Amino acid sequence: MTAWQRAPFQLFYWPFIQGRGEFIRLALEEAGAEYADVARMPESEGGGAKAIMAVLRDESLRPPPLMPPFLKTDGLVVAQTANILQYIAPRLGLVPEPLQARVAAHQLQLTVADFIGEAHDVHHPIAISLYYEDQAAEARRRAGHFVKERLPKFLGYFERVAARAADSGDDWLLGPSLSYVDLSVFQLMSGLSYAFPNTMAALGPEIPRLSELSRRVAERPRIAAYLASPRRLAFNEKDLFRHYPELDE
Amino acid sequence: MTAWQRAPFQLFYWPFIQGRGEFIRLALEEAGAEYADVARMPESEGGGAKAIMAVLRDESLRPPPLMPPFLKTDGLVVAQTANILQYIAPRLGLVPEPLQARVAAHQLQLTVADFIGEAHDVHHPIAISLYYEDQAAEARRRAGHFVKERLPKFLGYFERVAARAADSGDDWLLGPSLSYVDLSVFQLMSGLSYAFPNTMAALGPEIPRLSELSRRVAERPRIAAYLASPRRLAFNEKDLFRHYPELDE
Repeated sequence: MTAWQRAPFQLFYWPFIQGRGEFIRLALEEAGAEYADVARMPESEGGGAKAIMAVLRDESLRPPPLMPPFLKTDGLVVAQTANILQYIAPRLGLVPEPLQARVAAHQLQLTVADFIGEAHDVHHPIAISLYYEDQAAEARRRAGHFVKERLPKFLGYFERVAARAADSGDDWLLGPSLSYVDLSVFQLMSGLSYAFPNTMAALGPEIPRLSELSRRVAERPRIAAYLASPRRLAFNEKDLFRHYPELDE
Repeated sequence: MTAWQRAPFQLFYWPFIQGRGEFIRLALEEAGAEYADVARMPESEGGGAKAIMAVLRDESLRPPPLMPPFLKTDGLVVAQTANILQYIAPRLGLVPEPLQARVAAHQLQLTVADFIGEAHDVHHPIAISLYYEDQAAEARRRAGHFVKERLPKFLGYFERVAARAADSGDDWLLGPSLSYVDLSVFQLMSGLSYAFPNTMAALGPEIPRLSELSRRVAERPRIAAYLASPRRLAFNEKDLFRHYPELDE
């Protein structure tokens, strides 16, 4: 047994992208949790993408994950990003205690998930089995609608959520303490700003609270240290959020 | 206060489609729960799509729903289909007690949600603000990949989940008792069979357990009564699952 196999949280996600795994990395980092990013460990130590495939093929799991990210913890293999966050957040102190707040947090996280799916499909509107270049014309058409309709709709929604929190005197979306949803909104804002810089600059005045919330997340000591570390992968054009200038306004 | 406002479960969803609301209707029907399908009530009794809009505009909600379906119960407004099911299932007796089974159920339900999103975007690959006819060419291209790659991938996954349950001697996906995930898989199979009859007929031999599970769900007394009632809306081409012959194999 290598060291990472004793880590209380073992994250399995593709090693070269932020992707959906990043929402989980941010939660573990903010909490200062001891975790292994398994597929980024050397193959000689049981890491690499091979480690992901081994779990996907493990016939003893019920149910198996369909795809990464998934997390091994407590002897369980938990899949689906929002499900993982919901499961670990209480232990990490990243969600308020009352059931009502937990249901609200998960509702917001699932709305983040919907938005991420739409943002991904901007560069892959036809099939994930095709390269971007093979669906660039359709991507361009979809992007026109995404930046004009969907992006303002979703960000406008989260801005309203942030405004109501502020009106109640809360510093964060779910209350006086930071939750995993705040971290996810930061990641959403980061990814969109990378992928659609012109659109996001133009939209800036309409989403002041989201911009300010993202800045405050980035300044949290553990998040700031993480973002400056080699553990934070750079955005790139194999990732969920991709910068293709022709898809931006 | 009209009668429906006293119902312990008040579902808010578009009145003319099954859509995502149907996953919740099936759970409430199977449990024999007393519920109001609010937007299908007459406007004179506070129903109609107006009732949905009134909640979406209610500035006291924190957070507000972004879109239907949402459910009023316990004095809460809960949104996001999978979140609603997770919240009500314990009370309806539609999920096993152990935490591990609940996490597994939700993981599967979120995978159903991913699949539904992809199935929807087959007929709307460019924008939901456009008619199908205005994106029919792109839809046709996407459909080719969906029926050959994505549909077999997702259904093959759920077939494996069903096989492992059967290997453990369980009648249903999560154990000896039916859960909300079984109901959702039934709805998925029904919708796909309506939208892609040729593809589903060809795929039939590879998913015998899913077909059998769907039949057993349809034969449950309360589900059978529901499906034969006017409460079950017919599939149609404004809905999530649409039958356009040119998108089927």
